[in-house]
This record gives sequence, structure tokens and C-alpha cells, in this order.
Amino acid sequence: MTFQHDCSSLPIGLFDSGIGGLTVMQELMRLLPHEQLIYFGDTARIPYGNKSRETVIRYSIENTITLLEKQIKLLVIACNTASALALGNLSSLFKIPMIGVVQPGAEKAVAASKNGRIAILGTRGTIHSGVYQSAILQKLPEAILFPIACPLFVPLVEEQWIDRPSAELIVKEYLAPLKGCGIDTALLGCTHYPLLRGLIQRELGEEVEIVDSASTCAEHVKEVLQEHQLLSSQQQQASQYFVSDDPGKFQALAERLFGLSITVNKITG
Amino acid sequence: MTFQHDCSSLPIGLFDSGIGGLTVMQELMRLLPHEQLIYFGDTARIPYGNKSRETVIRYSIENTITLLEKQIKLLVIACNTASALALGNLSSLFKIPMIGVVQPGAEKAVAASKNGRIAILGTRGTIHSGVYQSAILQKLPEAILFPIACPLFVPLVEEQWIDRPSAELIVKEYLAPLKGCGIDTALLGCTHYPLLRGLIQRELGEEVEIVDSASTCAEHVKEVLQEHQLLSSQQQQASQYFVSDDPGKFQALAERLFGLSITVNKITG
Repeated sequence: MTFQHDCSSLPIGLFDSGIGGLTVMQELMRLLPHEQLIYFGDTARIPYGNKSRETVIRYSIENTITLLEKQIKLLVIACNTASALALGNLSSLFKIPMIGVVQPGAEKAVAASKNGRIAILGTRGTIHSGVYQSAILQKLPEAILFPIACPLFVPLVEEQWIDRPSAELIVKEYLAPLKGCGIDTALLGCTHYPLLRGLIQRELGEEVEIVDSASTCAEHVKEVLQEHQLLSSQQQQASQYFVSDDPGKFQALAERLFGLSITVNKITG
Repeated sequence: MTFQHDCSSLPIGLFDSGIGGLTVMQELMRLLPHEQLIYFGDTARIPYGNKSRETVIRYSIENTITLLEKQIKLLVIACNTASALALGNLSSLFKIPMIGVVQPGAEKAVAASKNGRIAILGTRGTIHSGVYQSAILQKLPEAILFPIACPLFVPLVEEQWIDRPSAELIVKEYLAPLKGCGIDTALLGCTHYPLLRGLIQRELGEEVEIVDSASTCAEHVKEVLQEHQLLSSQQQQASQYFVSDDPGKFQALAERLFGLSITVNKITG
């Protein structure tokens, strides 16, 4: 029995600041139904998007250690802010293979765009980091990018206000600068934003393709597992969900936003 | 030289989850110009309002220790959520005299109301704790209370969106249940909310008196200092400001929201 074979039965760990990373988790479940997944939502310290690089790195290191203690074989940083600000530090610190959501999101946007005019929506931390801009320009140097920080989107989603008139108005205000820019693609650079997709699509019009990183990220995970011979060959135990604050609130939100009926446990950081 | 005399030259410590507690700080500066104040904004973990009691207690204990290390003579919990959820625990743990913002706010609302119909606006944590309701009913048992949780107000203030049409709409949506309730007083049960006072006043109408705890809290501080013979008799050093995340952002926000030109330093928690 090789080392790889032993490890293949271990779970994949994911973390996000809150509930948004479940978009990635769901794609992983669909694409890799034999894998056991362990999700950690750092709800005691949400949101990450407006916090400094240093703080997001510190939180990301702590979250990684929390998941490593659960014996995972691969880490998915299912949070755009943490992927943007902390992936470099995490991969220099820890040996475990890890995948963020920035690279997959950028690839998907480039593949989707025909005219190279791409809007990037994200938290302030993600947008100011410039990582999406670099990742897209590396693949499509002639791209014209329209990055927009939308810091109120995460609280809106976490408050379940996604179908209120004020949510519509907030989406309208953030996206106003895109009028007349001729974009054909908008990249949702935050795992919470797919929950506002309907409003965003209505505001941008049907001709704009909206992409997010969830499905591409899941494909990357599959490739990396294959490459490291870490794919699970048989059905594993049920996936697990942990948060750093009130599990009940997360459970209710997961049910309401994703139709997921799950048991969530608290880990004190 | 007595112990009290020694201590009187020590600073007063205040903490809040973010910038809102500066409303209390400003009242203290006005009322007690000889006192040195030390403010700590836990911006790395803001907001507190939607987090669980247990988490808010843990953060409040850590913040208190941070301030105790700076040799303070009195602690002001300049955060409604922390006052509501953690004051009991803090006062059973620590010897230092401490004052929250709930009791002063409740007193002010009772004094302001003529018909006893009072709205209480606060974060989910504060409203669900029921402490404002109990504090008001204790003084005015016949009061009819209309408590409303407004969890998006803090992110709105922190994003400086207080003069946007969407802020107006959010205020309108939260306050809609108050129409026709005949309230004559609205208590702002969160230190961030005075920054939305204009919008709230417009929505409720000029006949409703809006009260917050800042000035009453400052008066309580003065009384407690007198009682313990801890009032400073001479001008102390300049007040100090600390945060747990990016000081630059706090500094800019303090300037924009309060017209304060201050130097802010970071303390890693």
C-alpha cells in the first residue's frame, strides 16, 4: 500500500469566511461524488473582504491549521479574498496541495469572453489586490478590464436580503460605471456573489455572460487529485460542516440559500 | 498620596467593534476634557451584531484585557452588542469599574418619551438579547416597545454609504413596521446608528424624538468617577486610538464621519 493510496481516502478540506464557499462545495460534490469533503466557514470573523492583507493572511493560516488537524489530503481556499491575499503565503508555509478560486475564475472569464472586455466584481480586498487583473492579463494580454469593489454584497447575502428592492438598488449603484463599457463577460470574484446572480444579470442584461469560479475550481481539484494519485476510489464518509460561530444560523442559511439540509458543528478557533 | 489619587491620573478605556464608539468618546471628551481616553476598535472582527453571545463574550474579554494592559482606571463598553451580551460576564470577571451603553440609553429613552411607545433599533444580537426591553420596562413598566433588528446598518456606516439612495431604502424597509404604531421616541441601540440619524429622522418624521446613549453614558462615567474619587484633577496626555486591523482605514473613516484628525495604531490581538 503506497503513501498515495493511504491518503486518497482522506477528505478534501475547504474554507471560506462564511457560507459562500458552499457554491464550490456543491460543484465538488457533483463532480467528485466519491470524495469526502470538510467545510469550514469562519463565521466568527466574517467578512474578510474589507480587512487588511495581514489580517486575512493570519485568519487563513489559522483556518488551514484547523483543517489540517482533520487530516485532509488537499486544501481548497473557497474564498476569493483569502485566495487573492493569502494563497502565496499558505503555499510557502504548508506542504499540502492547495487550490484557490482566483486562477479558475480568471480562466473561465477568459474562455467566456469574445471581445476581451471583462468586468470583475469582488470585495475591496480582492479588487485592490489586483490578482484577478493579473491572472486574466496573463492569459489574455489585450483584455480590457473593469474591476469593481462591491463591499456590501456579502452582508446582503448573509442577511438573506437578496430579493429586496434595496438589494436591487445596491446592485444598480455598484454596476452603474459599467454602462456603455461594452463588456460581454462579468466575473463574480467572490463566492457569495452567485447568490446575487439574478439581480446582477438583470442589471447587466442578458447579453453579458456571468461566470464564477465554482465549477472550474472543482475541475482543477479533480486534475490535481489525479496528478497526485489522490482520487478516492470508493465512497467515503459523509461530508462535514464546521463554523467558528453559531452553527444554527449557518444551517438555516444553507437551507434557505442552497436548499441544503445539513448538520453543522462549531469549532472554537 | 492615596490609592485613589494615584489612579485618577490613569486613562479611561473604551472599546467597540469598530468606529461607532467614537460617538461615546466624543461626548466624554466634551464632558470630561481633563481625562485621557484610550479607544480600541476591534476592526479585525467587526461586526459583532450578528455573532453569537458566546463569541461576543469571548471578544469582549479579549478587548478588556487589551485595555487593562494599558493601565486604565475605568472601562466603557462603547458597543451596544457587547454591553447587551457581555457586560454581566465582564463585571463578574474583572474588578475594574465598568459602564455599558444599554442602561444610559434606556434611561434617556424613558426620559424622552411622553406616551411610553418607544422603538428600539439595534443589531440582531442586541435586540434578541432583550436587555434594552428589560432596562426600559424596569423604569417604565407600562411602556409599549417596538424592537427592530437592523443588521445592515453597521456595514452601511462602515462603507460610508450613509448618503446613498440605497441607504435610504434600507432605512425605509427596516422602519416600515413602525408606521401607525404611534411611537414618540426611537432609541438608537447601536453606536453606529447616530451616523444614520438624518435618514432615520426623515423616515420617522420630526415628531419622533431620536435618542442615543452617548451623552447619557458620558454622564454616568462622570458620576462613577466622582463616586470612586477617580476624576482627573489636571490635564492628562492626549487620547490614544488603537484598532485590531488597518489603522489607515479607521483614520480615514474617523475623519470623514466625525471630522476627527487622529493618529491610530494597530494592536495585534
